[in-house]
Amino acid sequence: MNPSPRPIDFWFDFSSPYSYIASEWVEALAARHGRTVRWHAMLLGATFQAAELKSPVSYPLKREYSVRDFARSARFEGLPYTMPEPFPIPTQNAARVFWWLHDTEGAARATAWAHAGLRAYFARGVPLNDAAALRRLAADSGVDPDAAEAAWADARWKARLKQVNDDAIAAGIFGAPWFVVDGEPFWGNDRKVQIERWLAQGPF
Amino acid sequence: MNPSPRPIDFWFDFSSPYSYIASEWVEALAARHGRTVRWHAMLLGATFQAAELKSPVSYPLKREYSVRDFARSARFEGLPYTMPEPFPIPTQNAARVFWWLHDTEGAARATAWAHAGLRAYFARGVPLNDAAALRRLAADSGVDPDAAEAAWADARWKARLKQVNDDAIAAGIFGAPWFVVDGEPFWGNDRKVQIERWLAQGPF
Repeated sequence: MNPSPRPIDFWFDFSSPYSYIASEWVEALAARHGRTVRWHAMLLGATFQAAELKSPVSYPLKREYSVRDFARSARFEGLPYTMPEPFPIPTQNAARVFWWLHDTEGAARATAWAHAGLRAYFARGVPLNDAAALRRLAADSGVDPDAAEAAWADARWKARLKQVNDDAIAAGIFGAPWFVVDGEPFWGNDRKVQIERWLAQGPF
Repeated sequence: MNPSPRPIDFWFDFSSPYSYIASEWVEALAARHGRTVRWHAMLLGATFQAAELKSPVSYPLKREYSVRDFARSARFEGLPYTMPEPFPIPTQNAARVFWWLHDTEGAARATAWAHAGLRAYFARGVPLNDAAALRRLAADSGVDPDAAEAAWADARWKARLKQVNDDAIAAGIFGAPWFVVDGEPFWGNDRKVQIERWLAQGPF
């Protein structure tokens, strides 16, 4: 009997448009190849700082192209998309809620929260950095808003997220979405075709 | 009768691995959709400077991933690839020869030179920044080496290349390869699937 295939590691940031797009195909792609997905909410800003990088949208020319490409890449996948304003936003509260749910209620609950947050921000422009908006999103997602707010203010979940960011940096991750398939790193929504071939045929 | 479809504009730098990879599929892709390709040799360094960007390989973490991704992306397309050393290199001489050939012998001759240069550097590690190596490449490509060297030292072809760089900057180009299809900009070898759909189905 073959050993169980390893899960795909999927690193994302709640403020990353390409993470949103990839979050909508990664589960189906994995399932087609008998794989599961391990989701990791992280802060892209922490990895940018470690790698001495800046967001592409901090460069005016690159921002203009990127804004166009975000929307086109979403349409390419048939996804609803709105360019949120403000963008980008700090996402530590949404990410801490992710890890709180993950560690206390399980990975599936955390993944559902990830989908809820990414869709809220990128399909409806809900500002996840706003406490009231995040509380409403929690309530709409069946998460107690008081408990969610307590979690994002709790030193325990702050430390948990910091550890995840440190792990990402230690693993050489400097962008999102970031995938690791059987030890092989893939950066970007646009690596979908390579990941697909890797899953179908093995290393190439 | 339909008007003639517009050519695809393809901007590249002789020192760009993703330009090399894209240069090997762009003609066939265009032809499948009844299009031709207009090649533009440019200096990525000039556009980086204008956009206040740096090469991805100037960031240590990004360099390590990029080097891996260059080779993997070449294998994905079934292309020979070697990580050249030194990398990146100044490519103004190769680019001036491109424009000299383009303007005096025609676009097809310039495209043949582009293929020769990109393949020499990325499949065999030939340092295009070295005058002797570039002269040998010219000779091997049926281009008179003395005339090539005279062209790359000539103020006329220096000015021609500078104008191309200025045009690229004015058009908002900040990376390579860069494609324009019916006015729509696409940046990167990894936009192949989007370009393909655009050509097949029109704007999406």
